[in-house]
Amino acid sequence: MDTLVLRLFATSSLVLTACLVAFDSQTKLLFYSMVRKASFRDLKALSILVWVASAAAAYNVLQILRSRLFPQMGKNLAWFGYLLDQAVAYLVFAANSAALQGCVFAVSGQSNFGWMKVCDKYTRFCIQIGGALICGYAACLAMAVISALSAYGLFRLYSPKHFLQLKHQ
Amino acid sequence: MDTLVLRLFATSSLVLTACLVAFDSQTKLLFYSMVRKASFRDLKALSILVWVASAAAAYNVLQILRSRLFPQMGKNLAWFGYLLDQAVAYLVFAANSAALQGCVFAVSGQSNFGWMKVCDKYTRFCIQIGGALICGYAACLAMAVISALSAYGLFRLYSPKHFLQLKHQ
Repeated sequence: MDTLVLRLFATSSLVLTACLVAFDSQTKLLFYSMVRKASFRDLKALSILVWVASAAAAYNVLQILRSRLFPQMGKNLAWFGYLLDQAVAYLVFAANSAALQGCVFAVSGQSNFGWMKVCDKYTRFCIQIGGALICGYAACLAMAVISALSAYGLFRLYSPKHFLQLKHQ
Repeated sequence: MDTLVLRLFATSSLVLTACLVAFDSQTKLLFYSMVRKASFRDLKALSILVWVASAAAAYNVLQILRSRLFPQMGKNLAWFGYLLDQAVAYLVFAANSAALQGCVFAVSGQSNFGWMKVCDKYTRFCIQIGGALICGYAACLAMAVISALSAYGLFRLYSPKHFLQLKHQ
């Protein structure tokens, strides 16, 4: 089963997510001379998202190259690819969800903790982050389907009768 | 492949997570007569975690009952179970990660946004939430293994040569 199209889609979404977050900044004049610039470095979760999205994009590119250069995979390599696909899918999903939680605080604040809204000051910044998160979740969906397909490719090699035994055909 | 032990482990971890979060509260005397009580309702992410963990635990109990009452699954039911297992695993993981991000803010604050630490006031409350999150991630790990096993059980029914074709034996 060829996952090329899905991997290309996931890679482009991940690159788009990383770029949207990393190149997002907004400068605001707060008082007469105080200038405050918002960037992804203000929120740890966004820095982590940039790193995770870039790493996952690089991983998908490597997998595309691998599938072009060595189309036939042995059983061990298939297991390795399956486990990595699963891990990367969960990792991207966790990074996205953590960033989403951070953004929910930024949008709505948390009044009982005295945490103020940030997005009413940096509206354009927040909208761009929102777009990045949508791209990120699209990539997650693609990665989940990819990991299901790589499970399919691996597990159909096994016998339906005997546990962990390869089948003859 | 019997996933009973894993499902029992996941169910108990999820119930423990939900209980630890839901029954966690700490009352603090702030000023002379101002009493402030911290509970999971203060943080939306924690309420969501309680609901998601309870729902996932109920789902696992249903799956255990299903596997005792109807041990043989048809192809369609196996697909349904596989997709549900995947969805629940991702959902629990996302809820945990969002709650973790909320707790990171509570522990360390976010000084450039003016968000203050909360956990230096409600230390015992925060430690209990930390324990709940560890249980939650243990449950996630179990759910990930369960969904891999249910992928194995489903996909090994298919032919290794022909796409989406059941094998003869």
